[in-house]
Amino acid sequence: MSTQSSFLIPPANDGICRIAPYQPGKPIDELKRELGLDDVIKLASNENPLGCSPKAKAAIQQAIEEVGRYPDGNGFALKQQISQQFAVEMNQITLGNGSNDILELVARTFVAAQDEVIYSQHAFAVYALATQAVGAIGVEVPAKNFGHDLAAMANAVTDKTRVIFIANPNNPTGTWFEEGEFSQFMQQIPAKVLVVLDEAYVEYFPENFNSLKFLAQYPNLLISRTLSKAFGLASLRVGFGLASSEVTNLLNRVRQPFNVSSFALAAAVAALKDTDFIEQSRELNKQGMAQLEQGFARLGLHWIASRANFIAVDVQRDGGQVFAALLKKGVIVRPVGGGYAMPRHIRVSIGLPEENARFLDALAQVLAEIPATEAA
Amino acid sequence: MSTQSSFLIPPANDGICRIAPYQPGKPIDELKRELGLDDVIKLASNENPLGCSPKAKAAIQQAIEEVGRYPDGNGFALKQQISQQFAVEMNQITLGNGSNDILELVARTFVAAQDEVIYSQHAFAVYALATQAVGAIGVEVPAKNFGHDLAAMANAVTDKTRVIFIANPNNPTGTWFEEGEFSQFMQQIPAKVLVVLDEAYVEYFPENFNSLKFLAQYPNLLISRTLSKAFGLASLRVGFGLASSEVTNLLNRVRQPFNVSSFALAAAVAALKDTDFIEQSRELNKQGMAQLEQGFARLGLHWIASRANFIAVDVQRDGGQVFAALLKKGVIVRPVGGGYAMPRHIRVSIGLPEENARFLDALAQVLAEIPATEAA
Repeated sequence: MSTQSSFLIPPANDGICRIAPYQPGKPIDELKRELGLDDVIKLASNENPLGCSPKAKAAIQQAIEEVGRYPDGNGFALKQQISQQFAVEMNQITLGNGSNDILELVARTFVAAQDEVIYSQHAFAVYALATQAVGAIGVEVPAKNFGHDLAAMANAVTDKTRVIFIANPNNPTGTWFEEGEFSQFMQQIPAKVLVVLDEAYVEYFPENFNSLKFLAQYPNLLISRTLSKAFGLASLRVGFGLASSEVTNLLNRVRQPFNVSSFALAAAVAALKDTDFIEQSRELNKQGMAQLEQGFARLGLHWIASRANFIAVDVQRDGGQVFAALLKKGVIVRPVGGGYAMPRHIRVSIGLPEENARFLDALAQVLAEIPATEAA
Repeated sequence: MSTQSSFLIPPANDGICRIAPYQPGKPIDELKRELGLDDVIKLASNENPLGCSPKAKAAIQQAIEEVGRYPDGNGFALKQQISQQFAVEMNQITLGNGSNDILELVARTFVAAQDEVIYSQHAFAVYALATQAVGAIGVEVPAKNFGHDLAAMANAVTDKTRVIFIANPNNPTGTWFEEGEFSQFMQQIPAKVLVVLDEAYVEYFPENFNSLKFLAQYPNLLISRTLSKAFGLASLRVGFGLASSEVTNLLNRVRQPFNVSSFALAAAVAALKDTDFIEQSRELNKQGMAQLEQGFARLGLHWIASRANFIAVDVQRDGGQVFAALLKKGVIVRPVGGGYAMPRHIRVSIGLPEENARFLDALAQVLAEIPATEAA
């Protein structure tokens, strides 16, 4: 119901009524409830199928003792760990309730109504949502082969541009860009425009390039990271932004004083330290990616080459229908029609080997049930 | 550093540079680190000295298994519990990352730059912060005997007023208002103005009045509750807003999809169910309040009568000095000068009997060390 339909409730800010809330991946319990299924696998939210480091679990256990106490609003211990591990100063770090919180903090701090925010076609949905929520104008730049067209994005900058969101690799496409392309892009962006480089999946392909070194050169660059993906702490909500101390100072004025829970703070420190777990997760992901690519090839399907922990595949039919048919077989993937405008693709997260195999089997059955169609 | 001092970083929205971030209660670990103290008590953040229900701790234990999975973004189980317990519909509930999140969601949904937001002198600092963060104008109405002057607040409404924040009881004063006064207030407020009734401490004096029944009558009323105080889940960050389905629908468009962690969702369900624990907490609080009041009387100090789990006392000296001297004795309380404009008061949370006694002893020593002064 929109406020326009009634004079009896307080009117919302411009743009709020037009927001279509983010559609989360279907929770396992919800599907079990709805379809009466027992055995469900979820490959829909790019979670780490190994869960998290056992050391992070131990840290959570320890935090239970002090459950009644407020978190450290300054996140001292976690900032110290990040500072050491990524060679940044403590005052360059903003902690977030997931990196989603960082993306929104950026919009609320730097973007006002009627300003422009640039992002790519097929980019992460939260960029558009955060833009709409502050009443700003989203400028969506057409993708090139499903990936960011950084040159076109730089050309889209106007006097009204305040923020550009770019993701490397991008979700839901898995596409990426290289250092040379990024470096050229940054040179073209005016200093008054903040560039948000969202690296939620960077741990899966660290060989791509080290973005952190650009921080010293560009006070208008913010790098966003999350503990929800490779680090396996999605349930706890923790991420962080790295930027110049000036940008960080502004973000922390808007940040809620206790936006990150004690459990998330403690688990994040332990998770960041456990580099062996990340190595193991990366290796599992590499094998799972190969398993899925081989499976798709056997089924005659085309996929978008991905450097993340998921892969988008062209199912040669309506992706929403394929998603729904897979659900009935107890396999949750993500349809990427709608806002993502990829109606014939589905996105599947890399799971454990047996989960990947079950998904491929279910997909083969579904493709046999639903006839292929021509692309519109 | 403000953006005004430099043209090299992206300019922040109006008002952001003027925000003085919220000052949290000093964490115990931080004080130990700074002063080399071992034995520290914290009566600074209105936390439940009993911690939380053992059932909530068990729920946290269970959640560890699924740490790698995203939370249920719709919070089905928690909304179901709230719906049953408070006799509201599921679509009247907004879940928040603490009730702080609810207060901010209100500002971001209903308040734009240059709009007016009304709150009382000596009211919770987050009302002013949330107002500043959206570039709106805070209208602070003078308090009456440290409490809200609801009649004056109703009179302060103009065409530009979008939201009024009121707290019952109020933090940091502990003051409260009765049903008749509230009812009269609501009748005077135009339907286009959202009234936020912040009941963070309501569990300590439930006999005051049942605000929930006003929801049916006023689609422009939002009641905010937290699990951080009596329920003892401050570390986990969870609170909720109850309002008309129309207001709730709007807030949920702006809410971050995974703003509440799985741990918080699970613990909150268990904590809400354990009414015995709340009864026990309330009883402990009643005894502790009497203990502190008697102690203050012995010291010849005046306090503000409180219906919460804390009490503000006039220390007849600079409260900041008394706060600092207590710190050195390992006792953390809250100074309420600065933004709260109560320079001769300190606020102390009700602790365990032995903590209250230790605070009173330390206070007696400090009062002997620092000479009393005339009020300015």
